[in-house]
Formats: sequence, C-alpha cells, structure tokens
Amino acid sequence: MQKAFVALLGFIPITIVALVLGSSPTVLFFLSALAIVPLARFIGRATEELSARSGPALSGLLNASFGNATELLIGFFAIRQGLVEVVKASLTGSIIGNLLLVLGTATFAGGWSYKTQQFNLSAAHANASTLLLAVIAMTIPPIFYQTIPSMLGATIESLSLLVSALMIVTYLASLWFAFRTHPHLYSEELEHYEAKWTLNKMDLTLQISIGSATQIAMFVAPVLVLTSIIFPNPMSLVFSTFELAAIILSVLIVNQVVADGESNWFEGLQLMMAYGIMAVAFFLHT
Amino acid sequence: MQKAFVALLGFIPITIVALVLGSSPTVLFFLSALAIVPLARFIGRATEELSARSGPALSGLLNASFGNATELLIGFFAIRQGLVEVVKASLTGSIIGNLLLVLGTATFAGGWSYKTQQFNLSAAHANASTLLLAVIAMTIPPIFYQTIPSMLGATIESLSLLVSALMIVTYLASLWFAFRTHPHLYSEELEHYEAKWTLNKMDLTLQISIGSATQIAMFVAPVLVLTSIIFPNPMSLVFSTFELAAIILSVLIVNQVVADGESNWFEGLQLMMAYGIMAVAFFLHT
Amino acid sequence: MQKAFVALLGFIPITIVALVLGSSPTVLFFLSALAIVPLARFIGRATEELSARSGPALSGLLNASFGNATELLIGFFAIRQGLVEVVKASLTGSIIGNLLLVLGTATFAGGWSYKTQQFNLSAAHANASTLLLAVIAMTIPPIFYQTIPSMLGATIESLSLLVSALMIVTYLASLWFAFRTHPHLYSEELEHYEAKWTLNKMDLTLQISIGSATQIAMFVAPVLVLTSIIFPNPMSLVFSTFELAAIILSVLIVNQVVADGESNWFEGLQLMMAYGIMAVAFFLHT
Repeated sequence: MQKAFVALLGFIPITIVALVLGSSPTVLFFLSALAIVPLARFIGRATEELSARSGPALSGLLNASFGNATELLIGFFAIRQGLVEVVKASLTGSIIGNLLLVLGTATFAGGWSYKTQQFNLSAAHANASTLLLAVIAMTIPPIFYQTIPSMLGATIESLSLLVSALMIVTYLASLWFAFRTHPHLYSEELEHYEAKWTLNKMDLTLQISIGSATQIAMFVAPVLVLTSIIFPNPMSLVFSTFELAAIILSVLIVNQVVADGESNWFEGLQLMMAYGIMAVAFFLHT
Repeated sequence: MQKAFVALLGFIPITIVALVLGSSPTVLFFLSALAIVPLARFIGRATEELSARSGPALSGLLNASFGNATELLIGFFAIRQGLVEVVKASLTGSIIGNLLLVLGTATFAGGWSYKTQQFNLSAAHANASTLLLAVIAMTIPPIFYQTIPSMLGATIESLSLLVSALMIVTYLASLWFAFRTHPHLYSEELEHYEAKWTLNKMDLTLQISIGSATQIAMFVAPVLVLTSIIFPNPMSLVFSTFELAAIILSVLIVNQVVADGESNWFEGLQLMMAYGIMAVAFFLHT
Repeated sequence: MQKAFVALLGFIPITIVALVLGSSPTVLFFLSALAIVPLARFIGRATEELSARSGPALSGLLNASFGNATELLIGFFAIRQGLVEVVKASLTGSIIGNLLLVLGTATFAGGWSYKTQQFNLSAAHANASTLLLAVIAMTIPPIFYQTIPSMLGATIESLSLLVSALMIVTYLASLWFAFRTHPHLYSEELEHYEAKWTLNKMDLTLQISIGSATQIAMFVAPVLVLTSIIFPNPMSLVFSTFELAAIILSVLIVNQVVADGESNWFEGLQLMMAYGIMAVAFFLHT
C-alpha cells in the first residue's frame, strides 16, 4: 500500500515532461491528479505526526493554510479574469464544504467505531464565536446594499474594505489568542485524554474543518477583497442572499452540534444532510 | 370523576346514530367533540403508563404519532381539494403550537409547583439539532424561489421533492438513533432520578411537544409534499416568509430555553408570550 | 484624583447661571458635559457599593434604569416633534451599544488582568432568552408589514400596541422572577466566590450591559409605542431591516459569548469588532 503511494510520485516528472511536450489540458489534468494523490497523503500523515507532538491547534492551522493558500491564489487570478461571482461561489462552497461535508463525514464515520466522540469544548467554542463574527461581517454589507439599492458603488466598496480590514485584524488576533495568551485551552484536555488516540483525531478534524472554514471567511475572503482593488472589477463583500443563507445556516447547525463537546453518528448525518440539501439547491440554482 | 369520563363514551354510539339519521354537521360536531373527551384522556393515561415502563422516548413518539396521523390524513385530503395554503398554515400552526404553547404552558404550570424542573439534556439536544435541520430544509427552497422568481415551476417542484426525501431519511435515522444505537441517552437519567415523578413528566412533555413538532416538520410535511404529486395542484416545501419566520424564531427560542437542561415558570412564560405575539400577528394577518 | 472630581461639581451652578444669562447652546453643552462627569462617577461608585451589599441584580437594574429613564423622556419628546425615525435609530444604537461596546470593552479590558473571567451563568442565561424574546417581538411586526405592504396603517398600529403590551408584561414578569421567585439564581454564586472582587465586577458589568439592553428593548421601546398614540405621528414597532439585523446579530453573538459562563479578552474583542462593523455601516448608511 505504502509502495503504491510512493510509486505515484513518478507522475510528478511525467507531468512536467508532458507539459513541456505540449500535451492537451485534459491529459495534463489527469496526470497532475495522479501526482497529487501521494502528496495529499503525505500532508495528511505529516499533520497527524505534527498533531501528536504539538497539539491539534497548530497542525490544524498548518493543514488549513496549505489548502487555503491555493484557494487564495486561484481566487486572485480568477478575479483578475473578471470571474468575481465564480470566486464568491467557490469561497461559499469551501466554507460550507468544510463545516458540513468534511466535519459531517468525519463525525459520521467516527461514530460507527465509537458510540460517542468527545472533543475539546473550549477550542470549539472559541472557533464557533469567530464563525458567528464572520457571519455578522458578511451579513451587514448585503443588507446595507439591499436596503439602499441606489447606493453609489464607491460607498459599498468603502464598506467592504473597512469591514475586510476589521476581519483580518480579528483573524490575526484569534491566532494570538490560540498560540500566545490561551494555548492551554487547546492542549489541556490533550494531556488529560493522552491515551485515547481517536479523541485527538476528533480534535484534529474539528481544528482542520472549522479552522479552515474560519480561515476562508475571516482571512482569505477579506484579503481577496482588499487586494482585488488593483483590478478594474474588484470583489466586494456582498455575497448573494442564497450564498449568505447557506453560510448562516451552516454556522448555526455546526454551533448547535458542537455545543455539548460530544458527537455521534447521527450528528454527523445531520451535517451531511444539511450539505445535501444545499448542494441540491446549488445544483438546480445554476 | 373517572365515572363521568366513562359516561362520555356513550356519545360514540349516539354520534353514529345521529350520523345515520342525517343530523346537521353542527350537531354532529358537538356530539363527536363530547365523544372525543374520554378518548383523549385514555390516550393521555396510556402514554403516562407506557412512559413509566418504557421511558419517555417511545411513549412520546407514540403520543405524537397518534395526533399527527390525523394531521397527515386531513392534510392529504385538503390538498386534494386544492387547499394547499390552508395545509401549510395548519402545519406551521402545529409546529409553533407544540414548541411554544404546549411546551410553554407545561413548563409554566410545572414551574408553580417546582422551582426548577430538570430534564434529560442529551435527548433535548438531539431533538434541538434535528429541529434546526428542519429549519434549514424549509429555508433553502423559499430563498431559492425568492432569488429567482422567474424559475420554472418544475425546478421548484424537483427541489421540493429531493429535499423532502432527504428529510424523511433523516427522520427515520433519528428513530434508529433513539431506539437502536443510543437508547441510553434517553433513559440513563431516567434511572438516576427514578424517584422524582415530575422529572419524568417533564421529559415526557418535552418528548411529546418537541418530538411532535419535529415529526410534523421532518415527516408529515415532506410526506405530504411527496404524496401530493398525484394531484393537479401539489404542495411544495415553499412556505411563506411569515410562516418561515415564525418557525425559525420558535426553534431558536426553544433551543435557548432547553440549552441548560433546566426550566422554570419564567421560561414557560417566555414561550407562551412568543406564541401570543405570533398568534396576534397571524390573526391580524388573515 | 477624588478632589478633581469633586471640583467639577462646581460646574452645576455655573451651568445654571449660564442658562439664566442666555448663553449659546454650544457653551451650555460643554458646561453641562463637565458637570455630568462627577455625577456619572458618583452613580458608578454608588452602584458598586450597592452591588457589594445587595448583589449585582438589583444594582444592575438601578444603574440601567437611571440611564434609560433619560432615554425614555428624550424619546417621548422627540416623537412629539415627529422625529420617529431618529428615536428608533437611537434605541437601536443603545441596544447594540450596551450589548457589544459596553460589554465588549469591559470584557476586553478585564481580560488583560485576568486570563479567564467567570460569571453567573444562570442569570446570564435568563437575560439571554429574554433578549431572544425581544428579537421575536421586534421581528414579527416588520415581516408582517413587508409581506403585506398594502396593509392598512391601523392594522399595523394595532399589532404594535398588542405586541408592546405583551413585552411590558414579560419585562415586569422578569423582574418578579429575578427579585421574588428566583433571587437565589442571581446571588448563590456571589457567596461562593465572595473573595474574588473582580468576579462580582464581571457579573455587575453583565447585569448593567445586558440588563440595560433588555430594558430598552422590552420596556422603553414598547412604552414609547404605547404612549406615543396620543401624538398625530406615533411610533410603531416596525424597525428598519438594517436596525433589525443589527439587533438580531448582536443578540446572537452575545448569547454565544456568554453561553459558557466564562469570558476572555478575545471574546471582548469579538464583541467590539462586531460593534465596529455595524458602526462603520451605520455611519456610511446615513
């Protein structure tokens, strides 16, 4: 099994050669997809090893950051191409995908092996209120826009920029909180349950999924708003009613599910169903 | 007292005779109403006896199912008559009536005898997140509809059908959770507080009221959506903004009130007041 | 320091003399502002002394009532002048100012000295659900109004008056709850942590900020609705979508932050940021 993964690494030079030889985009896509498999597995294993040494907070942050750096870069170039609405839909999809699909599937799967999975309530609580602040920051500009449709574009842009700046400051403050002033909140229960391997895994899943959603909402999206002002068609913080409703409802049900510090297969199923409902609507919507 | 109730059973044959003799609907209504009194009392007593033996989860489910079977049948025939909006209003009324009026009155009344009433937090928590999922399922189609008013009727109908199917699957999964994989959540505290008769009663009230609201939202409504496709004018999951707001706000305040596993007369009063505000608005609305 | 404050009292007679001599409003404003400083400090100290003797519930209520009596009077005369929208904006500003800015700043500042501040969870919980009821009461009339824009003004006014009456009854019931039937909820932990001076202070801050916001929403606003019917242009309970969204979101994040009975600097910062986002939007909005 291990060897098969290593063998797939051979597709990295093959992809480069194919690129040089001028292969079609479809061929390049499938070659790159095969080359990514072992890399994704290595990141996953590195995250787990890191978690065993430094706790789920840091490894969750690093794992989320690896993935979201790509999202940030692709978003930046897509906005330059004028694909503003596509980027907003993609950010929304990442937020609800992490909150509902990733967390839901992990909780559901873990629930078959363990009747009840416990996790670090303090850390989940801090993330949950940051997510709620993200909801506030993303709700205010659209309501502003909808109540005064005759509003000048410049005013909406000023509001987007100011709110985005506040979001980035808050996100950086949340890192300061997690790693400087209150790291014990994220590790104290780690020592307590040291023996239970799966517990640590549940905490790691929570940090990766909720942490990644928080990072996209509170850092990636506002950075794209701020940096895209150099383009003729910048991205504002005004998401569509549909996208906003999906984000608000996802945050509410995740907050409800993590509120008691325990999870089971049925809570995982609920998150997956919420994702299913939204996915069906998104699919019919477009 | 007991004898008076038994005597009322005599109205069952009297009603049948009156029906055969072709009495007016008004007379039949009052005769049936009298005949129902002892039956309602028997169901109530049977539920309590059952609860003492098998726990509040099963007896709450049976009690809710007895009542909602009628709601389902009446709804089905009303949709056949084209009374789609009436059925939606009736389902909404049942949901907020159970969540606010039934639960509120029981909590208020119980609060006069007992300063604080405790109940099974795990069971209430599981119901609360299922209610939130119902809110998500009922919110997505209307937002879908409102953001794209030019949408084809067929697309809305597909969305309604798919979401309804997911709701029924989730509802059946919640029964599997409550009776197969996690029955201990619903009974462990039962043993613990065995002696306190009223505690069990509070749990039973919660299971009947919240359980009934959940059953209407997650089972009765979607079954009506799915079965009514055989009629020329089927019912969709698109409730009015007003009905939806009433359901969302009811779920939020009930979740808040049950969040700490305790209740008192003031929390009961808050639920009753929330019902009063919505009832006044509904009354003026129509 | 103490002497400097006492010296400022001299501005009380100076302001009166200036008023008699017919000074300009600007001069009178600055003289009154200076005279208010020692008075505000005396109220603050009296509140703390009172809290040490009678608990945070009573002193919080008195402190909130002192400030809100002024708000009520000014509101009444402003409505008489036809400034209905200004009064609604001012009430909204007071509610979110208390919930986000006052509570946020106190939590943030306290968080620098104490890693974690604990407070009385039962009292915070009771206030939180009253705030949620206020949200329901303030949400129903606008939705009513928006779904039926052709509605007669008289019907909206009836709804406003009925809902306002229910709000005042609930507010009075909340005082009965706090001071008659369940005063132990507000004081039991006081004895327990008697030695920790700051804990009491955090409870007092919560009672003043959340208690004041509750008083404005559940008492000041409905009293203004009921008393302003004597004017040709009375105030209804229909707040703008923007004001309503600000109130709903503030209540949700405060409920989230106080849900675990603990607070830290980051939670204070989150509340301040939420205020900042809304303040920026309000500023650009007008």
